[in-house]
Amino acid sequence: MDIATIIGFIAAIGFTVWGIMDSGDIGNFYDFSSIVIVFGGTIASTLVAYPLKKVIGAMKAIRKAFFVKTLDPSGVISQLIELSNLARREGLLALEEAGEKAEDEFLKKGIMLIVDGTDPELVRNILETELTFLEERHKDGQSVFESMGSYAPAFGMIGTLIGLINMLVGMEDASSVGPNMSVALVTTFYGSLLANAVFIPLANKLKGKSSEEILLKELMVEGLLSIQAGENPRIIEEKLKTFLSPEIRKNYKKGFESEDAL
Amino acid sequence: MDIATIIGFIAAIGFTVWGIMDSGDIGNFYDFSSIVIVFGGTIASTLVAYPLKKVIGAMKAIRKAFFVKTLDPSGVISQLIELSNLARREGLLALEEAGEKAEDEFLKKGIMLIVDGTDPELVRNILETELTFLEERHKDGQSVFESMGSYAPAFGMIGTLIGLINMLVGMEDASSVGPNMSVALVTTFYGSLLANAVFIPLANKLKGKSSEEILLKELMVEGLLSIQAGENPRIIEEKLKTFLSPEIRKNYKKGFESEDAL
Amino acid sequence: MDIATIIGFIAAIGFTVWGIMDSGDIGNFYDFSSIVIVFGGTIASTLVAYPLKKVIGAMKAIRKAFFVKTLDPSGVISQLIELSNLARREGLLALEEAGEKAEDEFLKKGIMLIVDGTDPELVRNILETELTFLEERHKDGQSVFESMGSYAPAFGMIGTLIGLINMLVGMEDASSVGPNMSVALVTTFYGSLLANAVFIPLANKLKGKSSEEILLKELMVEGLLSIQAGENPRIIEEKLKTFLSPEIRKNYKKGFESEDAL
Amino acid sequence: MDIATIIGFIAAIGFTVWGIMDSGDIGNFYDFSSIVIVFGGTIASTLVAYPLKKVIGAMKAIRKAFFVKTLDPSGVISQLIELSNLARREGLLALEEAGEKAEDEFLKKGIMLIVDGTDPELVRNILETELTFLEERHKDGQSVFESMGSYAPAFGMIGTLIGLINMLVGMEDASSVGPNMSVALVTTFYGSLLANAVFIPLANKLKGKSSEEILLKELMVEGLLSIQAGENPRIIEEKLKTFLSPEIRKNYKKGFESEDAL
Amino acid sequence: MDIATIIGFIAAIGFTVWGIMDSGDIGNFYDFSSIVIVFGGTIASTLVAYPLKKVIGAMKAIRKAFFVKTLDPSGVISQLIELSNLARREGLLALEEAGEKAEDEFLKKGIMLIVDGTDPELVRNILETELTFLEERHKDGQSVFESMGSYAPAFGMIGTLIGLINMLVGMEDASSVGPNMSVALVTTFYGSLLANAVFIPLANKLKGKSSEEILLKELMVEGLLSIQAGENPRIIEEKLKTFLSPEIRKNYKKGFESEDAL
Repeated sequence: MDIATIIGFIAAIGFTVWGIMDSGDIGNFYDFSSIVIVFGGTIASTLVAYPLKKVIGAMKAIRKAFFVKTLDPSGVISQLIELSNLARREGLLALEEAGEKAEDEFLKKGIMLIVDGTDPELVRNILETELTFLEERHKDGQSVFESMGSYAPAFGMIGTLIGLINMLVGMEDASSVGPNMSVALVTTFYGSLLANAVFIPLANKLKGKSSEEILLKELMVEGLLSIQAGENPRIIEEKLKTFLSPEIRKNYKKGFESEDAL
Repeated sequence: MDIATIIGFIAAIGFTVWGIMDSGDIGNFYDFSSIVIVFGGTIASTLVAYPLKKVIGAMKAIRKAFFVKTLDPSGVISQLIELSNLARREGLLALEEAGEKAEDEFLKKGIMLIVDGTDPELVRNILETELTFLEERHKDGQSVFESMGSYAPAFGMIGTLIGLINMLVGMEDASSVGPNMSVALVTTFYGSLLANAVFIPLANKLKGKSSEEILLKELMVEGLLSIQAGENPRIIEEKLKTFLSPEIRKNYKKGFESEDAL
Repeated sequence: MDIATIIGFIAAIGFTVWGIMDSGDIGNFYDFSSIVIVFGGTIASTLVAYPLKKVIGAMKAIRKAFFVKTLDPSGVISQLIELSNLARREGLLALEEAGEKAEDEFLKKGIMLIVDGTDPELVRNILETELTFLEERHKDGQSVFESMGSYAPAFGMIGTLIGLINMLVGMEDASSVGPNMSVALVTTFYGSLLANAVFIPLANKLKGKSSEEILLKELMVEGLLSIQAGENPRIIEEKLKTFLSPEIRKNYKKGFESEDAL
Repeated sequence: MDIATIIGFIAAIGFTVWGIMDSGDIGNFYDFSSIVIVFGGTIASTLVAYPLKKVIGAMKAIRKAFFVKTLDPSGVISQLIELSNLARREGLLALEEAGEKAEDEFLKKGIMLIVDGTDPELVRNILETELTFLEERHKDGQSVFESMGSYAPAFGMIGTLIGLINMLVGMEDASSVGPNMSVALVTTFYGSLLANAVFIPLANKLKGKSSEEILLKELMVEGLLSIQAGENPRIIEEKLKTFLSPEIRKNYKKGFESEDAL
Repeated sequence: MDIATIIGFIAAIGFTVWGIMDSGDIGNFYDFSSIVIVFGGTIASTLVAYPLKKVIGAMKAIRKAFFVKTLDPSGVISQLIELSNLARREGLLALEEAGEKAEDEFLKKGIMLIVDGTDPELVRNILETELTFLEERHKDGQSVFESMGSYAPAFGMIGTLIGLINMLVGMEDASSVGPNMSVALVTTFYGSLLANAVFIPLANKLKGKSSEEILLKELMVEGLLSIQAGENPRIIEEKLKTFLSPEIRKNYKKGFESEDAL
């Protein structure tokens, strides 16, 4: 999946560069002051619009989105089923050790709350508040890129206006219009390309990653509360499997084995 | 219905080609590098914005939307009424065989849950969670096409900017402006046509298909829960018929016959 | 009200034609291939976007919106008050005859459900589901016109691009630019006019008509349930009158008379 | 506040006229057929989109928004506190006389419902339904102006297209291009100015006025229900004061005096 | 954080000025009548759209957003934990003195309500109504800037139209086109820059500040209600810590110390 994204980036640049070289010279598309206006303006406006911390957070989110693997839902389900079997056999307190070993911080916290004998209503309350804030933070990241996706073409146009105004003022002989106009349009080109090949798709990507992660955590909440309620592992599995898409469900093997083992 | 869609596609292309040939030459509208920029750029940005799996899923959704027939709501109602009669006469367990024969996976799952004696609240819970995720997956497909519908004109404009910048740089004699400008505009033409005759209408079509399918499944949930509650088949039919549009309701025959047979 | 709408249509065309003739010749605005591209393209994309049935339904909705009169809310209230008086005097069964005479299908169905002794919860459930689907169907009609309102200017621009590309390719002498450019712009003109004087206002009109009808039916639901609950006709009237706008309320006479007759 | 609005209108026109005269002649901006197309077209499309009654209602709303003063929330609170003291001392029936003297129709109706001994649930129900419809009617007015704000620039562009098409057809000598083009652009100018200095800000203004009025009425509902429940005037005041903004709260004097008088 | 914002503003202006000077003369970008049209028109339309009080409120909000520090959530949590310990040891009445010392008006009000022995349901009701109105007022400020962000480019375009119309009318020799056109474009430049470097980012900033403040106050409500309910300080802390982001949670020291002190 992530490889496809990187291929996507390279392809977007590749097709554009190829398109440029097919009909002209790549050198026409390099203009330092255009870069300063579009990049600089976009970043400056973003810093006005968001606190520095959120802008940095958004940058970190990219790295996370591309390189940190999200957990596999089938794996999480089998983990929860194992916990439920354990809890049924040895009681909720037996989960403590498993909780300490859990890699996912959210799952760990949930297990600890159960082990502590926290009231189920409070467990749900705490975990769901946590999810709400997680979603909020994810949305911050997306909206930073969405804003950049709208500032970039705007500064592209501002740069072109600067070029045009400067050109027109001194326009005496028509022969110089072409090349100057060309330079003026380069900023619009930068702005559009940045918005449509980088910022807007990235915002979208983060949105997808976020809803995947949230879904996984909702699955954990559902599973943990069922475990705390002492529900039958078979029923728990049936409930949690509704969170899987049909394709994943077909590949869902471990679950069925643990079901057989009941 | 699907024939109309295919006619729609052919007509959109037909009218455009006719419009082109009426005032000029279709050859003016073929430009390989424009195709690369618009198609390539659109697909590349889509791959950045969505995981490969969702893009492929969206492509599959087209095929399904055009060639797989959705079930007929009247048929589903009569099927549910038959099940309800059967359940009244021979008990819920008698539904098992009918469940195994059910073509629709969702209906099958619902019947099996009832046969297993699952708690009604849990049955509703499981089936509705399933519906929520189904809708989510449908929305993914729609949003892939909506994104493509916004990337295509953007890359169309980027392509035109590339053409313009290359042209203007070397502009010395005014006589070459016309033809070069013409080639530059072809990318904008591609982008607009793709967006307005393909991607945006397709996204819309998928949305319609999705809500039709969801409606049908909500009808099944309603029917199954009524059967489980042991409601009178006549009442069930009355309730389910509200899901039909007035025109379909008039053509609804089988239902009335089964009603008479009570 | 509907006369105003027809005047609106005629005026929109009239002002435009007058504007054209004031500064030029109406003949400049007729171009057959432009008509084909804009109308044809818009209809073709609409057929891709919606099933044929919904497109036809939207066309029918226009006729209905212009020529079928919606019931008058004051009239419906007095009708409901009469029914409530009747039910109080002679019992719910006495409504059967009145129900058969009711012109409105929805009201008829509601009365019949009451006469059949259906559970109040189920009556509300059935009638509200019916309203939900009615609203859904109304929305389909609106969205067909909204889509047409966005496809029309898009195909207008596509047509202009076609004209420009064809013109620019063969551009040798500048003197032919004017007339050709003129023809190219006619498509944009068609697209904008169609969208802003026909499709978008029509979508809006249907929306207004729909909410009027839904409101009237909600009033019926409220009234019918109050009748079934055996509430005092005076209270029912007080409740239903809140659905009327202040102006209508002032003209509300019959209601008060029936109130006096209590 | 309303003076500022009128100053706003005058300033918008003034700055524009000044801008025109600074660089040219105001006479260039008068073109009768442009006025016909933009005004006429906008009004015509609005009549297609909305029933005449709503368009007239929207026009009346302007007058009301500018010249009818909204009640002062502090005043309403003291009025409610007085009513609550009265009701505590002499019973709910004693409110009848006060109700008849109430200027606000909504407050009057609320008091009368209480005096009639209507069930609290029904009082809330009736008053809130009334508020819902009031809000609905307010929204109608806003959306009429929002639509006009989108039709005006559209007809501005349509008018410019008309001018361009007529001009280009007959274009033989380049010297006439300037003046004709100038006239063609006047329609776009009208459309933009109307939308951005009149329709869109007016829609916004009505929205603000509406939410102010709704808030005031919600305050009345809250207060009336508390009076009916026989709550302590001090508590009622505490509850109602949360509806005031901090600045108003500081100026809130009368309330405290009545509080002292308890 | 605020330093970054000021850097953002300076950078946006700096990059633009640098871009201008790199290719031309800053003097070309000063045009008094353009300033009048864009600034004047934007402010005039804003005064039509909003009451003077809200426009002034929005201006004040800027100052507050940049110079008033928001409270630190960790600090608020430790404060609430201290209050909860105090309440447990010495009863709710002991909070009075602490309440009087509280800097935050909202927290003060909440403590006083508790000390007064107000019913928990009413405490929540009053505090949440207060929050709703606070959010409403914050939204007013944001929407003033959002409107300015849409009026500014509109008046930019209106100014350019004025320049173009005036120029075209008198167009006789082509040599004057350049400079006049240049001046005409300056208004569009102003409008775009104001919108994208000032108004839109500011609206965004206020939105962020608002949600931060609301979050903090929701935390207070949650904490105060838990204190009133006499919950265990440890549990309260656990609940409140879910309001912190993971990074802040790691730095959350004082809380743990107070926890140890239990």
